[in-house]
Amino acid sequence: MTRTPSNLPTFAAEALEEVRRSSPLVHSITNSVVVNFTANALLALGAAPAMVDIPDEAGPFASIASGLLVNLGTPHAEQRDAMREAVAAANSEGTPWVLDPVAIGALPVRTPLAFELRDARPTVVRGNASEIIALAGVGAGGRGVDSSDSVDDALEAARAVAAATGGVVAVSGPVDVITDGDRVVRIANGDALLTKVTGGGCALGAVIAAFASVDADRLDTTVAAVAVYTIAAEIAAAEARGPGSFAVAFLDALANVTPAEIASRAVIS
Amino acid sequence: MTRTPSNLPTFAAEALEEVRRSSPLVHSITNSVVVNFTANALLALGAAPAMVDIPDEAGPFASIASGLLVNLGTPHAEQRDAMREAVAAANSEGTPWVLDPVAIGALPVRTPLAFELRDARPTVVRGNASEIIALAGVGAGGRGVDSSDSVDDALEAARAVAAATGGVVAVSGPVDVITDGDRVVRIANGDALLTKVTGGGCALGAVIAAFASVDADRLDTTVAAVAVYTIAAEIAAAEARGPGSFAVAFLDALANVTPAEIASRAVIS
Amino acid sequence: MTRTPSNLPTFAAEALEEVRRSSPLVHSITNSVVVNFTANALLALGAAPAMVDIPDEAGPFASIASGLLVNLGTPHAEQRDAMREAVAAANSEGTPWVLDPVAIGALPVRTPLAFELRDARPTVVRGNASEIIALAGVGAGGRGVDSSDSVDDALEAARAVAAATGGVVAVSGPVDVITDGDRVVRIANGDALLTKVTGGGCALGAVIAAFASVDADRLDTTVAAVAVYTIAAEIAAAEARGPGSFAVAFLDALANVTPAEIASRAVIS
Repeated sequence: MTRTPSNLPTFAAEALEEVRRSSPLVHSITNSVVVNFTANALLALGAAPAMVDIPDEAGPFASIASGLLVNLGTPHAEQRDAMREAVAAANSEGTPWVLDPVAIGALPVRTPLAFELRDARPTVVRGNASEIIALAGVGAGGRGVDSSDSVDDALEAARAVAAATGGVVAVSGPVDVITDGDRVVRIANGDALLTKVTGGGCALGAVIAAFASVDADRLDTTVAAVAVYTIAAEIAAAEARGPGSFAVAFLDALANVTPAEIASRAVIS
Repeated sequence: MTRTPSNLPTFAAEALEEVRRSSPLVHSITNSVVVNFTANALLALGAAPAMVDIPDEAGPFASIASGLLVNLGTPHAEQRDAMREAVAAANSEGTPWVLDPVAIGALPVRTPLAFELRDARPTVVRGNASEIIALAGVGAGGRGVDSSDSVDDALEAARAVAAATGGVVAVSGPVDVITDGDRVVRIANGDALLTKVTGGGCALGAVIAAFASVDADRLDTTVAAVAVYTIAAEIAAAEARGPGSFAVAFLDALANVTPAEIASRAVIS
Repeated sequence: MTRTPSNLPTFAAEALEEVRRSSPLVHSITNSVVVNFTANALLALGAAPAMVDIPDEAGPFASIASGLLVNLGTPHAEQRDAMREAVAAANSEGTPWVLDPVAIGALPVRTPLAFELRDARPTVVRGNASEIIALAGVGAGGRGVDSSDSVDDALEAARAVAAATGGVVAVSGPVDVITDGDRVVRIANGDALLTKVTGGGCALGAVIAAFASVDADRLDTTVAAVAVYTIAAEIAAAEARGPGSFAVAFLDALANVTPAEIASRAVIS
């Protein structure tokens, strides 16, 4: 039975419990800027991070992981080879994997790599509006890591990417939009301070990979991941005095937020 | 009209407002130790960080950035190529760029690279006394990343480097000294806790690059950057209980410090 | 005279004072996930970190360092060459060095590298139980960076590794076990929150390298390092509200813990 917006908050709460219970091993090949914050976000959540990002190891490791993140933020040559290996292994094993096409559009190394990886059919793609538009092949991308397009502008692109991959696409913004090409779910939680901490978006990709391990419906697990992540941001923002204290409070909130809080605070439509 | 020490605090306050208004895109090629803190410092300040550090992408990205930082802390082979590309593009476009010659002196890869980059005429060089003395070719450098020389010992070296580059040199220490080879400005703000957080110096280089985008007088923009940065450190130190809480409070202070506080607290001579 | 468990707490207190007084230069070749936290832990402790991890520089730098850490967490090709260079230089100069065989067992690049480095006779090996068992050649390793074996299970493996290296082996866990193959010391300080911050184990390797510079008995200096580190964790946990605030409080505690607190709180048997 397909879950509906009215019962997705309850599912998000249950999925959080299951992540904490099963402690999924999340293999993250990610950029040097956010790798520490990403590992700490996964640990706070109750997942087990591992950042194996060299050739000959990334493939075998992806085979035993519960989920995989491939983030294109600083794609050095060894990492690019490791990404290809890991994706092939994940696809071979049926391991869910998330593609985060950071800052693609004009940059000439990561952009063709993102298309190549898109064609390997990621379970979930997460990006900002400009990145999703670029990945659909219909836009020129944003200004570096920022989005110059709105989330609603990206909806058709998101549907197109989902159709191409057969998976789910999550567009991050003030209201997050998640689609499998057919259903469209919006989540209106979060706080602007999340955009003032580097990795605020990138770590979400790893959290989506963690949640993808707990249920076969990856639209729903992605909604759950985004809800948990953005509600933790709201809790943290309520006590933060700036971006430094927000990042600290956010990790605390990821560890302490209760399933009941998720069920009651999630704004999903 | 050349600004004087008496009106530089007001200029620093105005420059901070302009950085927050324009959100300059600061391309940072920096070391793995401090890359996260550097991005967070830029975000807290209101600038937009992007850490594009691979060949074939660093050049195109530097062409569209508002400012560039090249930091030699962990200069892996791909980064060295990326630095050369980015500097060539910045010079071609007239983009201001900052060189931070971390730990040069005896180390045999970064030291010749620093001389090569010095000869490419950086807009600003930022370093500690030992690094500036080494870059002038008159000393053997410090002990790793620490300075074994005083800022005043480095003044003649700083003038020599400025004469060689045609740019500005900022020597970090208890009192910061900034010179274009002719004028010499001293800033007596800051706190020793800044030396107990890794990246306390390195992130300043990125902040100098951000400020360099808002005015053509790079001696003045560098003074403004150092004043804002070190006043934020003072504010943070007043409430910190150690280096961990200082780093958090420092990011909060970079985000919250007001132009009026900058104008009233800056100690510039 | 060999120190006994009854006077090791006093020695740990004295060793902390000596680290703060001498500020040992700790050369750390470590993984991208924890490099920032490791540098900050060393700075908080009063040591001087330097992360020189490229070929041609790692050897010369290890020659002048007070201690060296080689951590296999993300062993990119340049780092692997840098590790070999640094270890050869450390051995040539008699510089104490620490090997942290992160996640070895099944992974095919780091595992043979760990054996190669083990045979170069590290002064101290630090790992979790699964890593030490794998390094002894008697087990298959853990699940990524986590241990699936208990510390006591690893005692015989630790003795075997110590016999092979002629050095000290520290097994991290709820109770830390440290052996030189003959004496076995247990330290019952610490807090589980240390496992919820990435680098909680890895940074300890750098701290062990710092302490190894202050006395010729590396079993005792390792006990001192582990005691100081885990007591700081206890102090931090008492005021933390989650893993984010714990990491901040931990760095503050490393900076503020007094020798008297070490002497009174250390639980060594």
